Amino acid sequence: MLPRPLTKFIELFSKVPGIGPRQAHRLAFWFLKRDVYAFSMALKDLADKVSVCKQCFFVFDPSASSGQEQPTTCSICRNPNRDKTTLAVVEKETDLISIEKTKKYPGLYFVLGGLFSSTGRNGHEIRLKELSQRIQNDKNLGEVILALSHTAEGDLTAMELEKIFNQFKHLKITRLGLGLPRGAEVEFADEDTLANAIQSRR
Amino acid sequence: MLPRPLTKFIELFSKVPGIGPRQAHRLAFWFLKRDVYAFSMALKDLADKVSVCKQCFFVFDPSASSGQEQPTTCSICRNPNRDKTTLAVVEKETDLISIEKTKKYPGLYFVLGGLFSSTGRNGHEIRLKELSQRIQNDKNLGEVILALSHTAEGDLTAMELEKIFNQFKHLKITRLGLGLPRGAEVEFADEDTLANAIQSRR
Repeated sequence: MLPRPLTKFIELFSKVPGIGPRQAHRLAFWFLKRDVYAFSMALKDLADKVSVCKQCFFVFDPSASSGQEQPTTCSICRNPNRDKTTLAVVEKETDLISIEKTKKYPGLYFVLGGLFSSTGRNGHEIRLKELSQRIQNDKNLGEVILALSHTAEGDLTAMELEKIFNQFKHLKITRLGLGLPRGAEVEFADEDTLANAIQSRR
Repeated sequence: MLPRPLTKFIELFSKVPGIGPRQAHRLAFWFLKRDVYAFSMALKDLADKVSVCKQCFFVFDPSASSGQEQPTTCSICRNPNRDKTTLAVVEKETDLISIEKTKKYPGLYFVLGGLFSSTGRNGHEIRLKELSQRIQNDKNLGEVILALSHTAEGDLTAMELEKIFNQFKHLKITRLGLGLPRGAEVEFADEDTLANAIQSRR
């Protein structure tokens, strides 16, 4: 009963995480009343104008470089002022962005692309081989921060990575500190968090 | 720090209802790893290949018609087997789809495009003038069903529409029946619903 382009749209967008068939229906009719060309172009530009860094797997805009040749690494990896001795391994790109916003981390990154879970790897996109190669080839590194979430999957992944890193004896392996989040009230903190906060007191 | 095409995407898609800045970020990185051309094309086709019916304001695919000339009305309005004496006024396109799925309504539709609310019209897109004209010009009509939600806004809109319809003395104006939804347990039904169910017993 619906026009073919609408059912096509709904079918496609139903598969996007966070958008089910119901919201896809609503989106289709919302877009119908708007200038969809801007949205269509914004999507296309993601494929045409965004590259993935060969070194850390974060994204960058190759055309934004001032040099003659198009770069293959991102602006963080190319920045001569970053600390080349520290590498933060993050699960995903948005984690890197959150850490950059703190302005407290001067080092480099590696975007792992996923976490291990008790039922296997999530999404099968974890860049284990690439991470091993990076650590093997990068002679500057002195510390690897496993900047993963303090969840069951984050902990499991950290354990798996530590196994791999055991062969690199010169490396210091650390994780993000545990404690009370800013704004948290002691009364309502769970036992585990409070215990960690006491141990990491400063 | 993010490539311009990514920030552009996030900026645009943050404005879509149901998608905030956070989900727009996540979507951007999700799309980056996929074939976005299909999605981009699906969006563009909404504008290029979907028309709005001049009579009921539902959507249709003009190229799907077998005739020589491209039609200006949808397949429901053009269907000679539909009951031309009954018109169901619905708030939005997805309501029409829900009613069509019941296969219990043989009549025609009018998509109002919004509801009145206590703070004014929602979205300023309510097609009051078009509805009046439709009713004035369509001499076949005998009944108008105000197929609006039984919410405060639906009730308010029904009241406003009834005021307008008062001038058409020959028309029977009805609303959707009130009662218990399928699967509901009497014990847990609210008083209002239960009272309505008793009154509409059959």
